[in-house]
Amino acid sequence: MTEISASYSELLERLKEVEVLGEVMGILSWDQETMMPKGANDARGLQKSLLSGMLHEKFTDKIFADLITRIRSELKSKNITDQIIEANLREFSRSYNRQTKVPKDLVEQISLVETQAHAAWVEAREKDQFALFAPFLEKLVALKKKESHCIDAARSPYDVQLEGYEVGLNSDTIAKIFSPLKDGLIDLIRKISSSKSKPNTEILKGRFDISKQKEFCQDIAGSLGFNSDCGRMDQSVHPFCGGGGMTDVRITTRFNEDDFLSCLFAVIHETGHALYEQGLPKNLRYQPICSARSMAVHESQSLLWEKQVGLSREFWTYYLPRAKETFDPALRNASLDDFMFAISEVAASFIRVDADEVTYPLHVILRFEIEKDLFEGKIEVSDIPQIWNKRMHEYLRITPATNRDGCLQDVHWSLGLFGYFPTYNLGAIYASQIFHAIERDNPKIKDDFSKNQFAPLRKWLRVNLHEKGSILETPALILEITGQALDAEIHLKRLQKKYGDYYGV
Amino acid sequence: MTEISASYSELLERLKEVEVLGEVMGILSWDQETMMPKGANDARGLQKSLLSGMLHEKFTDKIFADLITRIRSELKSKNITDQIIEANLREFSRSYNRQTKVPKDLVEQISLVETQAHAAWVEAREKDQFALFAPFLEKLVALKKKESHCIDAARSPYDVQLEGYEVGLNSDTIAKIFSPLKDGLIDLIRKISSSKSKPNTEILKGRFDISKQKEFCQDIAGSLGFNSDCGRMDQSVHPFCGGGGMTDVRITTRFNEDDFLSCLFAVIHETGHALYEQGLPKNLRYQPICSARSMAVHESQSLLWEKQVGLSREFWTYYLPRAKETFDPALRNASLDDFMFAISEVAASFIRVDADEVTYPLHVILRFEIEKDLFEGKIEVSDIPQIWNKRMHEYLRITPATNRDGCLQDVHWSLGLFGYFPTYNLGAIYASQIFHAIERDNPKIKDDFSKNQFAPLRKWLRVNLHEKGSILETPALILEITGQALDAEIHLKRLQKKYGDYYGV
Repeated sequence: MTEISASYSELLERLKEVEVLGEVMGILSWDQETMMPKGANDARGLQKSLLSGMLHEKFTDKIFADLITRIRSELKSKNITDQIIEANLREFSRSYNRQTKVPKDLVEQISLVETQAHAAWVEAREKDQFALFAPFLEKLVALKKKESHCIDAARSPYDVQLEGYEVGLNSDTIAKIFSPLKDGLIDLIRKISSSKSKPNTEILKGRFDISKQKEFCQDIAGSLGFNSDCGRMDQSVHPFCGGGGMTDVRITTRFNEDDFLSCLFAVIHETGHALYEQGLPKNLRYQPICSARSMAVHESQSLLWEKQVGLSREFWTYYLPRAKETFDPALRNASLDDFMFAISEVAASFIRVDADEVTYPLHVILRFEIEKDLFEGKIEVSDIPQIWNKRMHEYLRITPATNRDGCLQDVHWSLGLFGYFPTYNLGAIYASQIFHAIERDNPKIKDDFSKNQFAPLRKWLRVNLHEKGSILETPALILEITGQALDAEIHLKRLQKKYGDYYGV
Repeated sequence: MTEISASYSELLERLKEVEVLGEVMGILSWDQETMMPKGANDARGLQKSLLSGMLHEKFTDKIFADLITRIRSELKSKNITDQIIEANLREFSRSYNRQTKVPKDLVEQISLVETQAHAAWVEAREKDQFALFAPFLEKLVALKKKESHCIDAARSPYDVQLEGYEVGLNSDTIAKIFSPLKDGLIDLIRKISSSKSKPNTEILKGRFDISKQKEFCQDIAGSLGFNSDCGRMDQSVHPFCGGGGMTDVRITTRFNEDDFLSCLFAVIHETGHALYEQGLPKNLRYQPICSARSMAVHESQSLLWEKQVGLSREFWTYYLPRAKETFDPALRNASLDDFMFAISEVAASFIRVDADEVTYPLHVILRFEIEKDLFEGKIEVSDIPQIWNKRMHEYLRITPATNRDGCLQDVHWSLGLFGYFPTYNLGAIYASQIFHAIERDNPKIKDDFSKNQFAPLRKWLRVNLHEKGSILETPALILEITGQALDAEIHLKRLQKKYGDYYGV
């Protein structure tokens, strides 16, 4: 190590500055969503624009190309093999290439059109007029294809976008993985909808005092393992997990006095993200590999806690009595059996973010298919509303009456996020595979939940996943943890068994 | 103007970036005191240290020297006189000189040690162990003396620090101004302590619900004119006014269930600071002159609102009935006369921030004398506890039993703020001079207070002081507003009259 210490140290020292600046951006964004008075909006825009300019400048410094070349040649000539160094070089080089290969004027053009497209989307959604958004979406797709071409002309433009959120997968592989999941879920949903068993969701209704919800949720986050010495919980319009690095992880939720579950599951979900961030390898802090593996792996952590823990009978064996005590007289009529069935209701609905775990993947698959075809020139932007509604009917047997409840509902495309949607499903699939492996190692893990004990689960995740940061790429990481490659089978079987039992199908 | 627009515009554009970065620092500091989890302390230290390094680099760019020279020569050759341009050049040049003379690594070192010193002070104060803080204070004094030496080796290091908070004064002048004030107040306090009239402070005792205090104080801040669209109020150990510029002014307070006045006066005090910040000239935002004139003038604003408004009989004519209603059954036995005497109690006490306005200046003079001697090498850090306690007895006839109640009570030294303390007294003196002038212009101004109307006062201050930013230097500003130079006589006479009346001395 000493032989290459000078160049390698310089690399890490420079990247540390980039990371630290990124943490500052994280705090500013958190503050904007939770604390900032509205009059400060323009000033905050200037602050973030200045900082992101400085960050970009630091990160794309030409000196990095030299440093990388020098380090690689030293490693080779001295015959040094070091997993950490290799992984740091690999992770940094990928990001560096992605950022430096796109000419500045294209970056600026994309940024400008994104701003226009977002404003157009807001108006289009409000007025339910897809045509207002369509020309900007067309421009954005064209520009993003150009961007992909600059980064790697040899690969499909959509795959290059996808790589921004998950590495080591391409859209054909994803389509193959999604295909049996899609067929299986369509079949399961048909069966469920013709079942005579229906949950009684009336028992969930009532008034839930906001300050009690806050305390209840904070207690749960703490029990799951959220470390309040290195994080905090606040309120925002949309729940998120952000903040200033692994010692300052900030989660948010929103409160609804008529429904304590929406807040609670948001808190569990964000706690799942937070545990990942808080569990990254401290000794590697500020290095490229000291970051969550990918969007999809991040989502696997939030979904594992939300769905496998928060929707488990064992979790509610402990928490339902406490919820009854806290929110009395609400929930008085809820037996554990009825409560579990009610919170596990499966029902086709228009809005992705409100969908249950069985119908959700089809919302995502529909978007994935559309954006893939769009990038491959198989469909036109103007075709989207029709295709959307046709597939919604095909997959879920419902047809939205408006585009506002259909293809205009999500913010993602207006922000130029293409290839992001599939990560939601990949996260759910990873989560099922990972939890399967955890139960293999520790068959009684769920029993702990009914005693409000989550340390064994958390420890497994920390040692096997969180502390590995980005040392391995996703396929290798999933293989190492689960003994399997990415495969939707376990996920589909889990959903079939769990919801089949509830609905008797 | 067009003739010099290129260079002058470039100057302002570059300084705008510096201002914006300064706002980011303001948000990070606010967050550190109010929101940040303790585990993030080291990370925050790095963030602030990196940003202050970048800020320093931007602000001390050599290009500024050229720009200033070019602008000045253009102004001269074209015979242009413009008060705004002149003032911007003057303000910027002074700061530029102060900063360019200090090397970047010293700036970063100071910032890092300040973060460590602050954490050490928090612990030292909690454990009442001065020794935990002492080594960091020693380091800081040494570093700050180095800083002074870099800025101006010809002047006393303490005077150079002082200039950071108030320009145009040195420590000898201040000592001369403080001298008759010190004598006069020691004399007044002796007389008061031997007076037979004593306020009945029992009537102030009771339980004051924290959430009601919060609401009550927020209402008062709003009535005084605090604009919540461009600011917010939170809780911190030590009340302060900070944030991210004039559209994001953040004040803090602290709550005590046994005493609603300590929170209330803190809020009025910080609101005074906030009104100044929110009242700066919007059209000149991001220019050097769009900033509060000095720490001392800033303090004149907080003290004017706290002492001349918040301690006035007229203010309580309106608010005492409301306080009785809010905090019932507390305050039931308080008549306006008794209440006014009780809240105007003069009593020697250990804690500066809790001190009344008669004993307060002596707390400050004590700190001023100690930090001056510390910088001049006449005493050592380890001598502080003993000297502190000795002088407390000399000035106020009391001796603190712990350092927590003595030399560990204030945050300032842990943040490297030396030369800051005297500005509290200067502020009080300015406030008396300014309010004297306001009453001269508007003899019935106090009558408004009893109707909860503060717009006339606020308007006077906005037009005469706030909107002038730093266009004038302090002596010229005070002269323009009051018709007088800095002089403690009006202040001392006011205190002698007011408290002489209460105590019949």
